[in-house]
Amino acid sequence: MRSLEWTGDTLRILDQTQLPHQVIWNSCHCAKDVAEAIVSMQVRGAPAIAAAAAFGLVLEAAVASTEETNSEAFFKRLAQAIVRLERTRPTAVNLFFALDKMKQVLGSSAALEPDAAVQALRVMAESIAAQDIATNRAIGKNGADLLPKAARVLTHCNTGSLATVEYGTALGIIRELHHRHQLELVYVDETRPFLQGARLTTYELGMEGIPHTLITDSMAGHFMKLGCVDAVLVGADRIASNGDTANKIGTYTLAVLCRHHGIPFYVAAPTTTFDWSISSGEEIIIEERDEREVLEVLGHRMAPEFTNAAHPAFDVTPHALITAIVTEHGIINHPELEAMMSFQQGRQEVSR
Amino acid sequence: MRSLEWTGDTLRILDQTQLPHQVIWNSCHCAKDVAEAIVSMQVRGAPAIAAAAAFGLVLEAAVASTEETNSEAFFKRLAQAIVRLERTRPTAVNLFFALDKMKQVLGSSAALEPDAAVQALRVMAESIAAQDIATNRAIGKNGADLLPKAARVLTHCNTGSLATVEYGTALGIIRELHHRHQLELVYVDETRPFLQGARLTTYELGMEGIPHTLITDSMAGHFMKLGCVDAVLVGADRIASNGDTANKIGTYTLAVLCRHHGIPFYVAAPTTTFDWSISSGEEIIIEERDEREVLEVLGHRMAPEFTNAAHPAFDVTPHALITAIVTEHGIINHPELEAMMSFQQGRQEVSR
Repeated sequence: MRSLEWTGDTLRILDQTQLPHQVIWNSCHCAKDVAEAIVSMQVRGAPAIAAAAAFGLVLEAAVASTEETNSEAFFKRLAQAIVRLERTRPTAVNLFFALDKMKQVLGSSAALEPDAAVQALRVMAESIAAQDIATNRAIGKNGADLLPKAARVLTHCNTGSLATVEYGTALGIIRELHHRHQLELVYVDETRPFLQGARLTTYELGMEGIPHTLITDSMAGHFMKLGCVDAVLVGADRIASNGDTANKIGTYTLAVLCRHHGIPFYVAAPTTTFDWSISSGEEIIIEERDEREVLEVLGHRMAPEFTNAAHPAFDVTPHALITAIVTEHGIINHPELEAMMSFQQGRQEVSR
Repeated sequence: MRSLEWTGDTLRILDQTQLPHQVIWNSCHCAKDVAEAIVSMQVRGAPAIAAAAAFGLVLEAAVASTEETNSEAFFKRLAQAIVRLERTRPTAVNLFFALDKMKQVLGSSAALEPDAAVQALRVMAESIAAQDIATNRAIGKNGADLLPKAARVLTHCNTGSLATVEYGTALGIIRELHHRHQLELVYVDETRPFLQGARLTTYELGMEGIPHTLITDSMAGHFMKLGCVDAVLVGADRIASNGDTANKIGTYTLAVLCRHHGIPFYVAAPTTTFDWSISSGEEIIIEERDEREVLEVLGHRMAPEFTNAAHPAFDVTPHALITAIVTEHGIINHPELEAMMSFQQGRQEVSR
């Protein structure tokens, strides 16, 4: 299962707003198409929107190379496309990381003909997508090593193939556990208001025969109290230098519940989710989405007309509540500034 | 606003499954009608179903007094009706309390003609309903005294006029705060899966102009962390001798969140919710409802066909997480066995 498919000249996006009832692939032909697919959440999940945005820029470049008459107009149009793609969603940092890589390619392509620049952008976008899959496989292996045999885990939102290019972060760990015959059951938080758990995670797990039980978000504490949960595994949209983690609304509540019950709370994320430019989670911009997504369920109004709703799409879990961050390069136990920096230092030493 | 209306010969029940979009009153003419309305959650909320069941028995008695040819058949039929009403929902104890009172009336009516027994049952049912309203008013006053000025409170499920005969328990406190101009804002948990918060609490608050904001259950922790919540107010379906409290699923999670953030967690309940026959919450039977209520939202399937769900309708909050229980007779601070017994003792001394 994949969230998107690059055909070489179009980007096909699996419309996640229609899952699990309808499997519809939409084709994107320019940056605007991709930006709209991200804003409307046809594609969502921090790593998936990063790759989608990179391909969106490639599509725009291909169109611009035929439509624009000179090199200056070509590069100006791509700069505008980058701004459009950056403005789609504010919280996940992977999006900006991927677009920064694309900007670097553009910067070093300034002397090239548009056709050559398109080719260079394409190579980078394909590399970002391929890297994501390899990263998720590594996260899966690293995370599975932390879990007990016959593990009963609880997860929130969707962090699988549908949130990444393929395989997933927290759900990558769950896939790996399943392959190792080390998984007993996955409790799937339905994840209101967008129901990513109920619609997407269940779909992915069921398609691969992975045992799971759907629960409402409000049931997590109850099952922890009954001793049914060995660990909570979640993804991340942005991780600050001190380990504070922004993720789907409801994640923070799970972390508090884990602390109360002495249950490990693991964040699974590629290192592209780390934002070294901010010192703590307080600096993370939390996206406020349309209140109608809370007032309605699946497009059906449930609240009275006079009622207003709040809709923060994410919350921030302080690092002190995180048992470990699982990355493609290894584990950061008890993340705080020093542990995060020493992990980063170690990586730089390895890569020298 | 009322959840039910006794006309003298029928019980009219406001169909809460259709709120807030449609206001439909259904008429019940016998115990079976009332039992079905309780099972299908047309009427819900511990005090409301207690009163509804009492009137259901009156209705059955009235029918039986014309249909049954002898006194023995009359009393046998009522005994069967009581069993039917008792089996509707297992967790809320107020139901059993009310039916026990009706049984006492029946017991002391054994020598009477059916017509006189019907009259005695009617007087008791009307007294249970009237008592509920007076009780809620007293809970409202007692609870409001605990809250700060410009209070921002969070509530779960529906504990208002729609959960009682009129006024409400936790929502009775909120009404009283509003009348005292002491209320700034109510955060309303939507309360999946049945959406009592999103459909019913918002409706009650909005109809009376009480300021409120709807949130998903998963947002409560986020707003507590931001310092937006001064107290959590919830109702109860059963309170054990040691103060352990069964209430709508999700209540326990709120109690844990309150403890983590140092926010007071108040349970508002009439003393008819106390179950002195059990020593702790571990003895409380938790109703498991149909998984479809979790797999669907408002009748629309959201999960894939192959997915199963869990549906415990209630959870149990240990007394150690409860700041105080607010009753019609006063406050029990830091409830545990001794505090509960001394409260009960005090009441008995007063009533001697």
